[in-house]
Formats: sequence, C-alpha cells, structure tokens
Amino acid sequence: MDTYIREICSLPVGTEFEGFFFIEHVEIKKHRTGEPYLKLILSDKTGTIPALWWKPPKDADLTIFQRGDVVFVVGHVEHFQQSVQPKLKEIRKADSKEFDSKKFISESRFSIEEQFNSLLEVIDSIENPFLKKLLENFFYDDSFVKKFLKAPAGKTIHHACIGGLLEHTLGVVEICETVAKRFKSIDRDLLICAAILHDIGKVYEYEIDVTISRTTEGILLGHLYMSCEMVTKKIDEIEGFPHDLKVKLLHCILSHHGEYEHGSPKKPKTLEAVTLAYADALDSRVKGFEEHIERELGTNKGWTRRHFAFEVPIFFDGNFNYGEEK
Amino acid sequence: MDTYIREICSLPVGTEFEGFFFIEHVEIKKHRTGEPYLKLILSDKTGTIPALWWKPPKDADLTIFQRGDVVFVVGHVEHFQQSVQPKLKEIRKADSKEFDSKKFISESRFSIEEQFNSLLEVIDSIENPFLKKLLENFFYDDSFVKKFLKAPAGKTIHHACIGGLLEHTLGVVEICETVAKRFKSIDRDLLICAAILHDIGKVYEYEIDVTISRTTEGILLGHLYMSCEMVTKKIDEIEGFPHDLKVKLLHCILSHHGEYEHGSPKKPKTLEAVTLAYADALDSRVKGFEEHIERELGTNKGWTRRHFAFEVPIFFDGNFNYGEEK
Amino acid sequence: MDTYIREICSLPVGTEFEGFFFIEHVEIKKHRTGEPYLKLILSDKTGTIPALWWKPPKDADLTIFQRGDVVFVVGHVEHFQQSVQPKLKEIRKADSKEFDSKKFISESRFSIEEQFNSLLEVIDSIENPFLKKLLENFFYDDSFVKKFLKAPAGKTIHHACIGGLLEHTLGVVEICETVAKRFKSIDRDLLICAAILHDIGKVYEYEIDVTISRTTEGILLGHLYMSCEMVTKKIDEIEGFPHDLKVKLLHCILSHHGEYEHGSPKKPKTLEAVTLAYADALDSRVKGFEEHIERELGTNKGWTRRHFAFEVPIFFDGNFNYGEEK
Amino acid sequence: MDTYIREICSLPVGTEFEGFFFIEHVEIKKHRTGEPYLKLILSDKTGTIPALWWKPPKDADLTIFQRGDVVFVVGHVEHFQQSVQPKLKEIRKADSKEFDSKKFISESRFSIEEQFNSLLEVIDSIENPFLKKLLENFFYDDSFVKKFLKAPAGKTIHHACIGGLLEHTLGVVEICETVAKRFKSIDRDLLICAAILHDIGKVYEYEIDVTISRTTEGILLGHLYMSCEMVTKKIDEIEGFPHDLKVKLLHCILSHHGEYEHGSPKKPKTLEAVTLAYADALDSRVKGFEEHIERELGTNKGWTRRHFAFEVPIFFDGNFNYGEEK
Amino acid sequence: MDTYIREICSLPVGTEFEGFFFIEHVEIKKHRTGEPYLKLILSDKTGTIPALWWKPPKDADLTIFQRGDVVFVVGHVEHFQQSVQPKLKEIRKADSKEFDSKKFISESRFSIEEQFNSLLEVIDSIENPFLKKLLENFFYDDSFVKKFLKAPAGKTIHHACIGGLLEHTLGVVEICETVAKRFKSIDRDLLICAAILHDIGKVYEYEIDVTISRTTEGILLGHLYMSCEMVTKKIDEIEGFPHDLKVKLLHCILSHHGEYEHGSPKKPKTLEAVTLAYADALDSRVKGFEEHIERELGTNKGWTRRHFAFEVPIFFDGNFNYGEEK
Amino acid sequence: MDTYIREICSLPVGTEFEGFFFIEHVEIKKHRTGEPYLKLILSDKTGTIPALWWKPPKDADLTIFQRGDVVFVVGHVEHFQQSVQPKLKEIRKADSKEFDSKKFISESRFSIEEQFNSLLEVIDSIENPFLKKLLENFFYDDSFVKKFLKAPAGKTIHHACIGGLLEHTLGVVEICETVAKRFKSIDRDLLICAAILHDIGKVYEYEIDVTISRTTEGILLGHLYMSCEMVTKKIDEIEGFPHDLKVKLLHCILSHHGEYEHGSPKKPKTLEAVTLAYADALDSRVKGFEEHIERELGTNKGWTRRHFAFEVPIFFDGNFNYGEEK
Repeated sequence: MDTYIREICSLPVGTEFEGFFFIEHVEIKKHRTGEPYLKLILSDKTGTIPALWWKPPKDADLTIFQRGDVVFVVGHVEHFQQSVQPKLKEIRKADSKEFDSKKFISESRFSIEEQFNSLLEVIDSIENPFLKKLLENFFYDDSFVKKFLKAPAGKTIHHACIGGLLEHTLGVVEICETVAKRFKSIDRDLLICAAILHDIGKVYEYEIDVTISRTTEGILLGHLYMSCEMVTKKIDEIEGFPHDLKVKLLHCILSHHGEYEHGSPKKPKTLEAVTLAYADALDSRVKGFEEHIERELGTNKGWTRRHFAFEVPIFFDGNFNYGEEK
Repeated sequence: MDTYIREICSLPVGTEFEGFFFIEHVEIKKHRTGEPYLKLILSDKTGTIPALWWKPPKDADLTIFQRGDVVFVVGHVEHFQQSVQPKLKEIRKADSKEFDSKKFISESRFSIEEQFNSLLEVIDSIENPFLKKLLENFFYDDSFVKKFLKAPAGKTIHHACIGGLLEHTLGVVEICETVAKRFKSIDRDLLICAAILHDIGKVYEYEIDVTISRTTEGILLGHLYMSCEMVTKKIDEIEGFPHDLKVKLLHCILSHHGEYEHGSPKKPKTLEAVTLAYADALDSRVKGFEEHIERELGTNKGWTRRHFAFEVPIFFDGNFNYGEEK
Repeated sequence: MDTYIREICSLPVGTEFEGFFFIEHVEIKKHRTGEPYLKLILSDKTGTIPALWWKPPKDADLTIFQRGDVVFVVGHVEHFQQSVQPKLKEIRKADSKEFDSKKFISESRFSIEEQFNSLLEVIDSIENPFLKKLLENFFYDDSFVKKFLKAPAGKTIHHACIGGLLEHTLGVVEICETVAKRFKSIDRDLLICAAILHDIGKVYEYEIDVTISRTTEGILLGHLYMSCEMVTKKIDEIEGFPHDLKVKLLHCILSHHGEYEHGSPKKPKTLEAVTLAYADALDSRVKGFEEHIERELGTNKGWTRRHFAFEVPIFFDGNFNYGEEK
Repeated sequence: MDTYIREICSLPVGTEFEGFFFIEHVEIKKHRTGEPYLKLILSDKTGTIPALWWKPPKDADLTIFQRGDVVFVVGHVEHFQQSVQPKLKEIRKADSKEFDSKKFISESRFSIEEQFNSLLEVIDSIENPFLKKLLENFFYDDSFVKKFLKAPAGKTIHHACIGGLLEHTLGVVEICETVAKRFKSIDRDLLICAAILHDIGKVYEYEIDVTISRTTEGILLGHLYMSCEMVTKKIDEIEGFPHDLKVKLLHCILSHHGEYEHGSPKKPKTLEAVTLAYADALDSRVKGFEEHIERELGTNKGWTRRHFAFEVPIFFDGNFNYGEEK
Repeated sequence: MDTYIREICSLPVGTEFEGFFFIEHVEIKKHRTGEPYLKLILSDKTGTIPALWWKPPKDADLTIFQRGDVVFVVGHVEHFQQSVQPKLKEIRKADSKEFDSKKFISESRFSIEEQFNSLLEVIDSIENPFLKKLLENFFYDDSFVKKFLKAPAGKTIHHACIGGLLEHTLGVVEICETVAKRFKSIDRDLLICAAILHDIGKVYEYEIDVTISRTTEGILLGHLYMSCEMVTKKIDEIEGFPHDLKVKLLHCILSHHGEYEHGSPKKPKTLEAVTLAYADALDSRVKGFEEHIERELGTNKGWTRRHFAFEVPIFFDGNFNYGEEK
Repeated sequence: MDTYIREICSLPVGTEFEGFFFIEHVEIKKHRTGEPYLKLILSDKTGTIPALWWKPPKDADLTIFQRGDVVFVVGHVEHFQQSVQPKLKEIRKADSKEFDSKKFISESRFSIEEQFNSLLEVIDSIENPFLKKLLENFFYDDSFVKKFLKAPAGKTIHHACIGGLLEHTLGVVEICETVAKRFKSIDRDLLICAAILHDIGKVYEYEIDVTISRTTEGILLGHLYMSCEMVTKKIDEIEGFPHDLKVKLLHCILSHHGEYEHGSPKKPKTLEAVTLAYADALDSRVKGFEEHIERELGTNKGWTRRHFAFEVPIFFDGNFNYGEEK
C-alpha cells in the first residue's frame, strides 16, 4: 500500500511501510568500515523526510539513483536525533506507469474537464472573427490543449498545481466579464481574448516532471515574452489579421504585470490592458492567500507565518472551503 | 438663456450672451485713471474663461463678489491677446434656486435611484444579523443617505461626480460578489459589508458646494480613518456586536488601499481584506482611465496626454460608451 | 534557588539546578522502546535552552504542559552535540504567585513611580482646559493607569520592557518641550498632549503574559488607529470639546510615524504633528540602538551584528550606562 | 536664402527674411472685424517662434495648413510683448524636394558611411556561423539597412539624430570588445551580436518625418519586445539555428535595460547580458550628458539646467569637441 | 527713501518712488524705431517686479548693467496687462556701502551676538581636551567666525538667512543635550562637538553676495565632505589627537543626513551619530515648516500650498510667533 | 605535505594528513569526565571543516589558540553525523614564515608585476603636469605601492583577492580609454587620473591578515571619503595645484558609485564623473558575475544559486577562461 510521508511521520518506531517517493537529494556515504550506504531525502506532496539505505547488497550500483527519480521503497520507521529517519531494506527505480503522479503534485480543485468546457463556451461567445480564429487556433489544437490543461500558473506563489493555469485563466476571465459589463467603452472581445491568452507562455515556462520547476528558457525570457511570441506566430498564420489589433492584444499581454517592478516592460495604456492587469492581480493574490492559509493552517484557525512574497502573516478564522470541488 | 463656457468660446466677437457662472478667482483692478474695475475668472463644468467688468457703476460695491460665488452675468465676446475675454455689462450674485447645479458638477452616468435600489437589495441579501443591522443603521437613516447619494468618490482621480461614491461602491460590490463565488472560504457577508462601507468617510472628506473640494478634516484625517470612526460609532450602538467581527471589518476598511505608500496604515491580512483592496483598485483605476479618456479626447480617438497620477498617456480607438446610461 | 539560563550554561556537566522557566516549545517524543518522553525549549529573559524529561513516571500526563506555561523544574546539566541540554528529574506547572515575572521580561531602567509623577506634573502644566480634561480623564482613571504603567512600547525594536511605554512617552515629551521653547508658533499644549497620547493604543496592541506578544487586534488595526479610537471616545464624553482641536490632535497621532511606508495613513501637515513625528523617531531610534548594543555586546566593546530593522551593525566603545537608574 | 530661426531672432525689427519651416501649431483666428488670420508656431532644429499671417488674401483657404507641414514663408521681423513675432506676407506648403531635411533634425556627427563600414567589419569578424548568418540577413538586406542607417536611438534622452542608432550601436560594440578582451569566459561572438541587434526595434519604435516621434506601436510595445520579435523572425528562417543560442541572444536583448524599473522584463542573468546592459548604460548616459551640455551651453562654459531624466545639472568647463567629425 | 517692492505694488498708478534693487535679469530691447531700451527684473527680499528703462539717454552704455548688480533707481508706477511694471527715469549701479544688505536677504530672528555667546558657553562645557581644542581652533579664529556667523544653513529649504547656520547649530545642540541627559551611554562631548561642527562646510557651500547661492564647489562636493575636510585639517594640527576619536567624529558628520538617499555616504552606526542625524532632521524640518507657513500665509491662517520638498501642504491656525526675537 | 581542505573531504576515513589552517572559530569544551578538549572550525580558501583536539596533553594551555591564528595540525579523517570531522593528534601555532598565504586568500589571475607596469605606462601618458605629479607622488612611493599591490577591491562582491584593487583599477582604466576616444569633449587626463585613484581608500578600508576583513575605519568612513582624504593630502603638497582641478577630481571620486543608494553623497555632474561611475559599475559587475560563476559552478555548467547582492541566479554554459593568466 502506497504510504504518504505525512502518515509515516506518525507511525510508531519499527513499523514497516512501502510506497513511491520522489528523490529530492541523494548521496553515497561510507560506513567507518569503508562500506558504502545511501543517504536520501524523499518527498511527496505532503512533506519531506531523510532516509537511509544502510546495508545495500554488495553488488548494488548505488550511482543509478538520481535527484528527480521516483523510487519504490520498503522500509521501517526509525528515529534519529528525535526525528523520523526510516531505514530502507529495498529500493528500486519506479516506472512512471506504476504510480499516480497526484501523489507528488496537487491538482486544481475544480474539474479540468468542466473548466475547459467553460473556456470553450467563452471562446464561442467572441464575436470579433480574427480574435475568435486566433483562440480557436490555440484551443482546437489538441497537442497545445494537452499541455495547457496540465500547466500550473506558478511554482510557489499561486495556482501551483496541475490545471492551475486553466483555473487562473477562468478566474481572470470571470472578473473581466464583470468589469466589461459595467464599463461599456471596453472592447469586451479584445479583453476576454487577452485574458485567455495572457499566461499561455507558462506552458513552456514551467515544466512538470514529477514536481513543478522552471525551465531555463522560462527563467531567461519569462512568460510575458513567451506568450507574445506564441501569439505572434499564430497571428502571422491568419490572413488579414489587423496590425493594430495585434499591437493592442500584445500590449495587453506585455503589460499585464502592471508595473515595471513586477516585470512588465510596459505599463498598461489602454482600458483593456489596465482591466486585465488589475483582474490578474486580484485573482492571483486571493488564490495566493488561500493557498498560504491552507498550507500553513491546514484545518486550524489563527495566524499563518509571514508570507515570503506578500510580506504579511495572514489571519483566518472562517470556514474552510478550499477543498475539492469536483 | 444659460450659456456654457464651451459655447462662448466659439461665438463670434461681439455676440451677446448671458448665464450663471462660478467665480474661480476675482480681483479689483484699477484703470490708469484710478477707476476700479473687476477682473474675474469664471467657470462651469465645461471650462474656464477670464472676464472683465470694465465699467461698473460708480456706486457699485465690488467687494461683495467672492471666490466660490455663483453669479449671473450679461456680456459680449471680446478677444484679448488672441484669447476669448468677454466684457460684462451686468453681474449679480445668483440665488441657489435660480440655477441648476448640474451646470457646475457632473453626475454619475447611472441613475442614482436605481443604483440605490440595487444597494438596498444587496444589503437585504446579507445573512449575518449584526452586519445587516449595521448596514441598515446607515442606509435606513435618511439624513445619512441624502449625503451618501450626493457624495463623490474623488476630486480628480476617479468618480469625481455627484453620485460617484454610490457608483463606485456598487462597482466594487459587483467585483467582490464575482470573487466570493469562486473562493468559497471567503466570508461573503463580511466582504460585501466591508465593500459597502469602505469609503463612507468620503461623505465628510469631500464637500460639494458648487464644485468638489476636500475639507480640512478630510485632508488631516482621510477617509480611511473617518470611515472607521463612523463604523465604530454605529457598532457601539448595536448590542452584542461581536468584538472580533468589528476588528475584522475595521481591518478591511483600514487596509483597503493595499499598500503603505497608498495611505493604508495596515496591509491586508485576511482573505476579505485582500479581496476588497484589489477590487477597489480595479474599479477605481478603470474608471480613472475612462474619465481621463473622456476628458482628454472627447469624441476623438488616439492618445491622451500623460495622466498625472497613473504616469502614462492612454490610447483609445474604440467605441464611446461612457455617456449617460439613465 | 531560582537559576537563570545564562548561569546554567556555564555550570559543569552533572551539576544539579532548579528554577522557574517559560515553555517556548514542547513536544511529546518516543524512545525506541515506545516509551514517551518530553522535549522542551525553556526560556527566561537571559536566553533559551533545550531540555529533556527523559524518564517521566509511567502515569504522568504529559499533555498538560503547553507553550506559554511557566514551570518549576529540577534537573542536572548534560551536553548533547556540544551544547547544553539538561535532563530534568522533576517538572510541574508553576502558580503565578510563586515566581517573579521580572525573570521573564525586563523592566524600564527608570523608576515607574517617579516617571509617572513626572508625567502627572506635565499634565498639570497644560493650560488648555479641554486638553487638560482629556488627559485627566485618561490618567486619573486607575484601571487605565494600571495598564499604561505596565505596557511596553514595543516587542523587539525599542522599549520592549515593562514600563517601556511610560519611559518612551516621557522621552518624547522632553524632546517636544525643548523644541517648543525654540519655536514659539507651536501650540505647546497641543503638542505635549499629543506626545502623551500618541502611543496609548499600545496598551491593547501588546499583551504581556509572561513575555510580550502582539494581540490579534493589534496586528489587524495597529496602535495608530487604536490610539485615535480611544481618544475619540474620551473626547466625545467632554462637553464642548472643539471639533477642530479634536481633528488637530487626531492628526498628530495618526501621522506620527511620519511616512506612509512606516504605517502612517497621513503625513504630518501641522507644526505640532511634524515635531511629534520627528521627536518620536529620535527617541525610539536612540533607544533601539542602546538596546541592541546591550543585547549584543553586554559589557564588551566593538561591533554588534547588523540590526534587522536599522540595517546596520553598531559600533560601541564607550562607557556603559544603560543599567538600572532606580 | 533659407534663414534659420536662431538668425531671425537676432535680425533688426523690419528686416525681410524667407525660408522653410516646420509647423508645430496652427490656429485660425479672427480680427475684430471678423476677418480671419493665421497664427502659427514655426520651428527648425535651432528653435521655435510664433508668427502671424495677418492679412491673407480674401480667397485663401487657411485650412490647408496643418501641424507637421513644412512651409515656405516670406515675412519681416516684428516684436510683440518684447518677443520676436514676425508677420508673414507669403506662405505656401513646401514640396519635400525643395528643402534640406537637415534643417529640421540633426545628424550623427560621424560619417554614416564610414560607421556602416565599421559595422560590416565587425560582422565579418564573427566566427559563430549562425550568429554571422543572422547578422548578414539583417545587414545585407538593403531595405532594412536603409531604415537602420536613418534611425535615431532616441527622441530626447540620447542619440536623438539621424544615424543616432548606428552611432550608439558602434559605441556599445566598442565597449563590449574592450570588456570581452579582459574577461575570457565571455562568449565574444554572442556578446557582439547582441550589441549589434539590441536596439534594432528602434527602427520601428521611432518615426522620422520631419522631426522624430514615437509610433503608437513603439509606445505600446517598446523596442525591447520589437527587437526580439524581429530577431525571432529572422532566426526562424535559418535552418538549424540552435534553440539555446536563440534563448541566450533574446535574453541579452530583453534584459539590456538592466533593471525592471527601466523597462526590462528580466534582469541580466548571463555574463553577456550583464556586459551588454552596463555597456549600453555607459554609452547612452555619456552621450546624453554631452547632448545636454551642447544644447544648454552651446559654446559657453558653466552649469546647465537640471536634466529632466538624469536629475542633475551638469558642469562643463572643458574644450568643446562634440562638433562634426566627418 | 528706500522703497520695498511689496510697497511699490500697492502704490497708485503714477506715484514716484526710489530705492535700491537687485537685478535678477536684464535684457537690451529695441523700440520699433530701432532705439534701444532696457527691460529688467528687479527684486528684494519682499518680491520681484519687471521694470522698463524706456528712454535712456542717447549716449548711455546699457551693457554695464548685469545680473547680480544692485542698482539705485528712480521711477513711477505703471500697469501693463494688469500687472505693475514701473518705468524708470534714472538708474545707476549702487556702491555696496550705500545700501543695507538686509533689504535683500533676511537675518536670523535671534540675536547673532547672543547666540554666539551661547555657542561659546557650550564649547566651554566640553571636557574632552582634544575636542575642546578642536572647537577652539575653529571658534577662536576670527576670520572663520566672521564667515560662520554670516552663513545660512540653506538656500531654500530651511534657515535660508544670514545667521541661519548659527541658529540651526544651536537648535541641534539643544536637542542633543536633552537626549544625552536621558541616555547616559552617549559620549556627550563627542555628540555636542559633532553637533557644532556637522554643517560647517556650509560656510563654503553657500555664497552670500546680495542673495544666497551655492558655489560650484558646494554643488560638486557638498557640505558633508567639505565639513570633514575642514575638520581633518584642523585635527592634523593638534598633536596627539586620537585616531579613533577622529574616525568617530568624522563618522558623525559624514552620516548626519541619516540615509543614503539624503546624501549620506554612510548610515549612522554609533549612538552619537544616530542621535545627531535625528536631531538635525527634527530641527531643520520644523524650521522648514515654519518658514513655509511664514512665506505662504504671512499673517493669515489656513492652508499653504504644497511644499516642494516635504510634499505636503501645511495647515496653520495658531498664533504667530516667528517674528523677530532680538 | 600541506593538504587543502577540499582534499581532506575526499580522503577515506582513517587517513592521516597534515597542513596549515586558519582558525575561524575555537571553543574549549569538556568531556563528561570534566577533561577539556578543543573544538575548532578550520578553513583555507577551498573551504571549511570542524575538527576536534580530543585528547590534549594534561598540561596543554588550550587558551592560546584564537580566532585568526594559523595553526599547523596533524590528524586523521573521521566522520560524525555523516560529515567529515577529523580528530587531531597535534596542533601548534604556525609562524607566518612557515606557510604560503596563498593557501588562504586567492590572488589576481593576472601577473601583479605586469599589471603594475601597465599602470605606470598609463601614468606616463598623462600630459597634465599636476595630475601626473599627483599620480607619481602616489605610485613612486614604495611604501604606498606595496600596500596598493596587495589590496583587494572587495570582501565578497568583486575582486576579493590579493591584487584585486590593481586588477579592477586597470579594468576601469581600459574602459575609460575606450570611451574617451569616442567622446572628444572628455578631459582624458582628468578621467584617467580619477580612474586610477577612485578606489585607493580601499588600501585602508580592507585589511588582509590571513583573510580579508573590513577595518573599523573602513566601515565608519568608507573608501569614497578615505580616497578623497588621501588625494587631498597629496594635492596640498603640490604647489600651484589648481583649486578647480582638485574639486573636479574629488567630485569624480566622491560620485563614482553613481547613485545615493549606492553610497555616493553626490551624483555625477561632469562628463568625466559620469564616465567613471558607469565604467566602474561595468567592470565590477562583470567581475562579480564571473567570480560567482566560478565559486558556485567550479567546472560545471548550468545555474548558480541566486547572488545575494545582484539578486539573480546566473546561467553559464560557456567555456571556462577565468583561471590563471600569468
């Protein structure tokens, strides 16, 4: 039975367990006798523990275990210096078909299928033929959609989960719709199109293997630029796409972080761009608060520790409703 | 017939006109002969012009005209140094019943009555009995409501019009509702109550005489504090109002500018406070963009000048829909 | 005999000791045999050490010990991994009458009684009848005075001690008197009244149990607002208190952090407010330097480590005079 | 004979002059008689003056003169309110072949031809075949080269002249070569290629008609993004161009403003990117100082006024060598 | 009789006047006839007016009048475009013995002699022999003292008057004494010595001719550095002056602006340095407020305009006591 | 044989070694028996390890070993808690003649002799006789030169090595020469002289004992001021040195950090000062990147960790050429 790390921590000393884990760190160490052993740090989405493969078989090749591998282990609980540090009696690299990746990375609490349907409905409501065609070229392309539905919207700050990009995209779209209804001078189709495409570069900025990491391209170029390059390429394939419409759409994407210090090379200078930037900030900040509360307080009430990016501790004494919605 | 300043500017030299105007500035000057005359700067909501009362009757008391008065004048168009500078043949202080204050300050483009009804419906939807009672104590109080419905939400940056506070309040409430539907851990009643009350101090921060100005109290204390003081007084009259609910509500109000540099003594530290702060920023920034476009471009398209607070010029080539909605 | 933690650290291995300590952290751990033991972190105002209750009696209820309790313990010194980690043979919860709270939190180095008398003399010197009445309503109220005399002016940055608020208040008053003598346009009574009341909200912002902590209300609202609310309530009870005097006084309190980024919702805009803000900064910064030197260098000379808030290390090679003054 | 505005200002009252001028502003005004006349503001690169066409022929169509036109005028010097305000007796729109555009915008003080040859030599020295091909695809393309050689590197801050982009590009290349010689770990070909391409988006960010202005696309997207889009398109046409080389090159361009607040969406994260960013800052800041000195002091020594962007006045008491080099 | 500009402005048209004035600006203009005339801007400490020498004698050399000269003029009041613009019938350069420089620059409201005596008493109270010797070497040196007593402490922000440096120095000393009495670990002699010397570089940073201006050396090096250089030179002449005492004293001077962004190359890192920095800020900010109120409101109450450096308008409704004290 | 710490870490358990090491930290500890032993942290430029002198002779004086000593030790490798922690059988204080200081601090990768020759050639090329004399007075003074050639240009951020100051000085000179060739209005001699002298205060700001540390004077005054004081003293010895040249030279030095927030009390206000400031930033930032890559990646490629001052991680996949050049 596949055990979670949170469970191992509460097992009595000596209890046997087995399961699949992600290798965060691995080192080959030596006993005083000169015999090698393996020191590992194992993780899943519930936490992290050290573990030792204390007595590997003489002929074992210890070098095959690498950071980033998922392994299957059998071991029993031990304590060392008052912390849990299991000893393993068996360890082998796992095949990706054997384990459920949800053990390592969480998923959007909304149904991905239902959300994607909502997104398609929104696309369907676009009247501007060029923008509609552009969106269809992205979202009727199965290979792109497959990546999009899996992508997270972040690594640590908000929507750091499978389907996080989709969830965030819909959250921003909803807010933009609300605002566009009140402010009639807004070009609603342009705004909604920009809202849908604003973060698509995250499909390549992040990489989900077993956990989420940022790609070298992502760190060097960022999703603002990458989204624009992707949109530009698709636009170039659409005959007659108006140049000024392209410029206004790219401006929305390029400026959606709102301020230079948040990495936007341009500040919003149109009604649509300014709406998108503030809607994006609203959805991602509220989600970031919610995720921090969940991570820090679990089912308790009270104060979290200070959030490293928001620079405040958060107080929560309400009712928990951030669980699964599906 | 009451003439607007914008109209006077396009009248041929010599044309007679009459109308009510606000005195922005007044000085008693002397001709070389030693005879006094009056130099005025007159305004209404369409603009500002200099004017001269060149030959007042010998026995006229010129000192009765003060900055802030509304006067009725009769004059004819003259040019001086290539600008319009009418000469007046008659001027007298106007009684406030004679003129329509809408000549001097614009009004929300939405119907105040309909909006207030919407607000009352929102209040009706609050389930928390303490919060509902608190809101009722404000909005079932005719003398407060009268001031509230007239108050602007700003002097220059956004919603600088009669009914602007109501319009902005509803805009923020709508966005908060959208967000509260997605994020179920939010205490929706607390959030909506905070959204309704967040700017009520503006009732006393601004003063509408003929134009909008800030009161001394408003400049020294500000609406964040003033709203809190008003809410505290009303809460103290409600028996059994929970202390922690009061603290959470005041925190939302006190932190709704989001950042210290925007004048919040506290940064948002709860889900409701962070939602309110970002929703407020979104509604007021979009409105500020819209008003700047309207003021600068009128019915043209293209670039506005740089906005003094947002620090960007704004580009608009869309369809104008920021006119009257009533 | 009640031993201080600083003393325990220099005792030879094996020495017995006893004393009262504050529980910073507590965990129930298990021996390999499955038997439970207690791991504690104990503190007093001289420092912090880990300790183990290695062999509790079989029937002991280990769950009664909580963070925040003061306990009486008997134990002997042991070393673990080159640090002191005593083993306890006895531990029980202490009654608050048994121990001296000064073991856990330091006190102002000036006599509280003498300082309070000085404060009353200052109040007596106020000539404005409304301000005098206001101050008397605070400082002739025994239940408020009792809290005020005990309150600290901070948790970590400055005057973090019993009586710290009183000491800081007098320090600011002295500087304000000096400035008011030179600048005759200052309303001296208003300035001194504001100086006395500027931080009174700290009475409820901080909580002294055995150590100093911030209350939830304190973190969500802050002493700037809380002081104003307290002052407003008292003013409302004084008949005829002039509205403009109230506004000027509240402005001094609300703006006394001087800059938005230090949490003032308004910058000082009167002579009295600007004097108070700079006098407050002066007294608290110098005290903060002194406390950092004392904490870091004790009786040595040289460099402290970098202060986390002032962002500099501090150099001191002078004569130590920050000891007791009483 | 074509007269410069600087010359007109020193002509005696009544002197006749003629010449070509740029219309900065134009208005149709009316005499008291109702007869129309034309009020203009005329400019060339030496300055700006008001002028009046006081008595146009009855049948003249005054509406044909627009801001941005170049006109040929004949007039004589008059003074109005102690300033020069010529009256014109003749005015007609000029054909672009009639006048020399150098009257309206200055040119790089280095020979454009010689500089372009230097640039081609630098390109020739690149050994990396992909980067060389990329550069050749830009600089062996006559239609691009034509635009590039004319483009300015700025509108006001630095290199605001025809050929300014070329001059600045070479200045940055020279500094990069110096640094690459000392720091051998730098990929010199990548650095030089990035230096040559870093600002090419300015070809479309600015528009030189008679004077320099920024395009709508330029204001909404900026040359950082526009350069990247241009480079990406050319790279996509080169078979086998390594993806990581593309990413590193785009990173240099995207980060070359060095800091978020200067409009870079990414900070430099490679040796080449950091070298380019600092070399660009060095060349443009020194040029900006030189241009400000020249503009403000002419051939005098002493202090300039405060530079609006550098936020200092500049002191110069040296020898002038910023004249023509050709 | 020497007339002030403030008086001229209220004289009836045609009235004759005479007096000494400072030339802010001068231009030789021409009548339509070709005859030259002089256009001047004249000032004294009460204000500024334009004036014309409309009909100079044929043989007058108009070029001898330069910005910075003080002239004696005789003229009569005329109005031009509703402003006062006198016509002069006589103008000649004044000898510096003829006029009182107090007409052009104000003086400290405290007696310079009494203040200097206070300063000498403070110096007398210093016990550290090296610091006392250092101070005596400055303040027993008549040629230095003469400059010191005249020097202003600023050009616009605070203490911009003759004797301003002395007044400010004593203000800072008083605050430092107050603080040193409370904080016994402060080296009082070091602090007071630093307070006396902290701004002495202003003796050469500013130049009082007829008005206050900054010297080129002052703008390029600043009084922080200049004070340190002056102190270093004097210290080098004192045998046995301890090196560490010199370093601590220079540190106080170099860091007394408190923050990098206020021009301190080092932040305060000793008790004395931090006290000096905050005392300096307190005295100069309060004085700056007072001067702004005086300049803007004169004998009125209410709001000033926004202060360009403090970035707030100031409210004053108190009793005026910032007049002469002597 | 003298072993490096990097080597010890890879030796098998039990292996004997000997060598010279720097004491980073030392404590006298006690066995349970009460017998004392020594716990040390030893370092050289390749790293840091803990070590125990477990069984010192009964009569050994353990107190003679101090932080900062270099000791010679003989020991063998042991592991404790999976880290290397050797036990020593012998330890004695080393005489500074016994060991090579290069074991503890690295040296510039360029030959110090060759670089100094280059510097002398540059000095020789200066034509301005006063600047040349000034430079000669520094660099023909053997005792100064000895210190200069050894000095580092930093402790952690860039050029933290013996000869680092010389290497950095030449790097800046080279860039300045490149810029001066293009911008002919620059006073090349002044610029090069300023480049050579800009950091000479570092000779006393840093102290190389066995490792680099900052002096108390260095922390309190900083090299900007210290360089100026050194230059001023030398200038005072040169008869007829023009005052304005001195002021311009000191301005270059004082402003070479470019911005207030980087510790410059003045921003650059001359062509030479602005060139120096940007050239200094360029050379030190590129070197800082290179050193961080070397330190973090060694001979690997990929990403470094985030640089603490530059606030980015650095990517390097190029060819390593930052080794020895001599």
